[in-house]
Amino acid sequence: MTDLDQYVSQHAGRMHNQLVEWLRIPSVSSLPAHDGDCRRAADWAAAHLGQLGCPTVALLEDQAHPVVWAQGPRAPGRPTVLVYGHYDVQPPDPLAEWTSPPFEPTVRGGNLYARGATDDKGQVFAILKAFECAARDRTPPLNVHFLLEGQEESGSAAVLSLIARRPKVLHADVVLVADSAYFAPGWPAIEVGVRGVCYVEVILRTLRADLHSGLYGGAVPNAHECLARILARLKTPAGRIRIPGLYGAVRRPSRRERDGWKRLPFSEAAFRREAGSAALLGNPRATVLERLWALPSLDLHGVTGGFTGEGVKTVIPAEARAKLSLRLVPDQRVETVLRQLRRAVRAATPRYARVQVRLLTGAEPVLVATDHPAFGHIDRAFREVEHRGVVQTRSGGSLPIMQALGARGAPVVLAGVGLPDDRPHAPNEKLSLRQFATGVRVFTRFLEAMARDRGPGGAA
Amino acid sequence: MTDLDQYVSQHAGRMHNQLVEWLRIPSVSSLPAHDGDCRRAADWAAAHLGQLGCPTVALLEDQAHPVVWAQGPRAPGRPTVLVYGHYDVQPPDPLAEWTSPPFEPTVRGGNLYARGATDDKGQVFAILKAFECAARDRTPPLNVHFLLEGQEESGSAAVLSLIARRPKVLHADVVLVADSAYFAPGWPAIEVGVRGVCYVEVILRTLRADLHSGLYGGAVPNAHECLARILARLKTPAGRIRIPGLYGAVRRPSRRERDGWKRLPFSEAAFRREAGSAALLGNPRATVLERLWALPSLDLHGVTGGFTGEGVKTVIPAEARAKLSLRLVPDQRVETVLRQLRRAVRAATPRYARVQVRLLTGAEPVLVATDHPAFGHIDRAFREVEHRGVVQTRSGGSLPIMQALGARGAPVVLAGVGLPDDRPHAPNEKLSLRQFATGVRVFTRFLEAMARDRGPGGAA
Repeated sequence: MTDLDQYVSQHAGRMHNQLVEWLRIPSVSSLPAHDGDCRRAADWAAAHLGQLGCPTVALLEDQAHPVVWAQGPRAPGRPTVLVYGHYDVQPPDPLAEWTSPPFEPTVRGGNLYARGATDDKGQVFAILKAFECAARDRTPPLNVHFLLEGQEESGSAAVLSLIARRPKVLHADVVLVADSAYFAPGWPAIEVGVRGVCYVEVILRTLRADLHSGLYGGAVPNAHECLARILARLKTPAGRIRIPGLYGAVRRPSRRERDGWKRLPFSEAAFRREAGSAALLGNPRATVLERLWALPSLDLHGVTGGFTGEGVKTVIPAEARAKLSLRLVPDQRVETVLRQLRRAVRAATPRYARVQVRLLTGAEPVLVATDHPAFGHIDRAFREVEHRGVVQTRSGGSLPIMQALGARGAPVVLAGVGLPDDRPHAPNEKLSLRQFATGVRVFTRFLEAMARDRGPGGAA
Repeated sequence: MTDLDQYVSQHAGRMHNQLVEWLRIPSVSSLPAHDGDCRRAADWAAAHLGQLGCPTVALLEDQAHPVVWAQGPRAPGRPTVLVYGHYDVQPPDPLAEWTSPPFEPTVRGGNLYARGATDDKGQVFAILKAFECAARDRTPPLNVHFLLEGQEESGSAAVLSLIARRPKVLHADVVLVADSAYFAPGWPAIEVGVRGVCYVEVILRTLRADLHSGLYGGAVPNAHECLARILARLKTPAGRIRIPGLYGAVRRPSRRERDGWKRLPFSEAAFRREAGSAALLGNPRATVLERLWALPSLDLHGVTGGFTGEGVKTVIPAEARAKLSLRLVPDQRVETVLRQLRRAVRAATPRYARVQVRLLTGAEPVLVATDHPAFGHIDRAFREVEHRGVVQTRSGGSLPIMQALGARGAPVVLAGVGLPDDRPHAPNEKLSLRQFATGVRVFTRFLEAMARDRGPGGAA
């Protein structure tokens, strides 16, 4: 047992109690009724960072959901680690499905159950405790900055605006984020890429106003039918997207990356069963993980217009709207994909209809270059604690904050200690106490390794 | 001036005041708050029929919206005319768009403005007054029965149930209905056909539950997309329905009927402009009236499932539903068309999806045989009063009550005196006072002609 292991186990009870205190605050950022709770959760984090010895602690973008900013003891000329995380949580409903109340943290079977346990308070707190552990004997020669936001679950507006106005907050050699999960139990992972997204609404109009289908049916164009024909043309039944030029910018992952994915404990049959689907679609020459992580996808989310109530109404809809999005991969760009999509939609639209494609939200794909020594440090830290190094994975989802955090060139190390069954966003969210302790030890070793590096931007 | 014309003009003021009294009662059948008003409107009609000399007057299916049943003086061995109409009206909203309040009947520019003026109180009342006129000298040797319902605007449940339980109410040589309009001013029309309808919901499922489009997009089937591809296959962009066998039972109208339609004052360009459409679709070898009246049509009314709220949500919908209907023409049958549609939908559904086609409502198409002498009588009546005989038209809409009224074999003479701009169901509904007087004279002559017929079912 190392002295670190000893420190962690000696102080486990106190650390647990502190986390429970933070988890009790129902900091649901999307519900205005909890604005005061979000503020309390921010205050709690700021006070705790002060207790941990941060000489600078501030609440920025001061409003209901402030950004907590803290700097550890200054170490001029030494490397800087920026820790990003969030103190806000998802709404807890449906409440009836929780075994114990979401804001009364409860331990059962080695897990701590609470809203925010894994997403993200519990994981952020593992880094805060690593910061404490790293200074257990003496303050390490390292700058550690903290950027904890309170709107991650509802758009990250305040922190994105802060980054835009004060890009210096990103000045760091590496950004450490613990808001993700192992690939499987015992398989620590760093996510080195996320897909981008191009989310649009297609608005199609064929008539001035809705008409009666008895009196006009058979002679005038129906907006819903016209839209269905356009949407049907955007993708083959087998799942290939039919937007000219779309696949042109897709960069295939390196053989090394793909070989790594093939070694992951992943069963396509189990994935299909878990997805509740009778079949898997997409390019049959690509593995399912490659389809999810490294190929663009298109999904139709919903259609509105015409009659959608109970019972029957015989209307010919004048207008129909569809919301759909594309997930993008390197080196696709939102702007280019939007242009390609617009061209494809217009080409499929008959002359008698008017069509519009409105961008609702966009995020560029991110792929982190993993040649920075920090990736070696995190890999070694996991090897020492878990006896297994990290696997490099990607996520099929989009994380706008990841692009923002990496915008100044610092590599983002997204290395969470959650487990795939932690149920973030769902009832009975939990964090394994073993994973929490592992996180504290791994992140401490990571900070210590960074402190041994030669200087800002330098390798060991 | 005939003595009939003299009678009608002498009594015009009284007739007008009586109609105004009936129109003042806001008998909106679809709004429970007006249940009492519906009852009052039924009572008013029953009392009036008593005053007109009907020895038998009854309220049947006694509830909030009773069916008014009345029989004029018995004339054994003589022909019987059954008059059908309704005393209920559409809701008047949007109220702000009425120039004068909907239940304060007001005359402006030769028109009587009120909810129900043309649909259907005003037109029913023209027949009641014709019944009065026909007996101005002596009771004519004719049986006249009245069946006035109070739920036409909300499904006709009570009268349909009455007809099912007591089919004898339909025992008549001819059914006279005045709940329609001239084809154009000066062009009296009888509607000899209505299209049927087969209204269904298509329910398609590809997944057990909705999935996140970031985490699963590109590998699992999307219910909305799958449904869009199915719907897109049901009709060509030019408007031809692609359901195998569907056109097999379509009976083309006779050359005589089509020639009649070609002589109608109808402009396809004006129709297109009025419909607010940039193009007209459908079989280019058929005229637009033929497409609307004598060809089946298919319309998609609305689509539900997935995400339909404000903003963005990245969901892969597990289920999608579409409501669509087909309009049917002779000799199509709801049951056959439903089977053909189901087969076409199933053939277009991939194996990994489950699909259901549920019938929501159906009505058979109706085409009235016009060889009964009553059609000659109504034509001559219009010729004498309007100096133009009736044109035979059809309606693209569906009228379930028409099928029910004709179920015992009596021809239904649907000969209204409304005008195309009367705005039934809309604000500022009106009835032309000239049309009302014409209706009284035409229907009187029609009853007198029927009374001259040899006997039940006999020709003159």
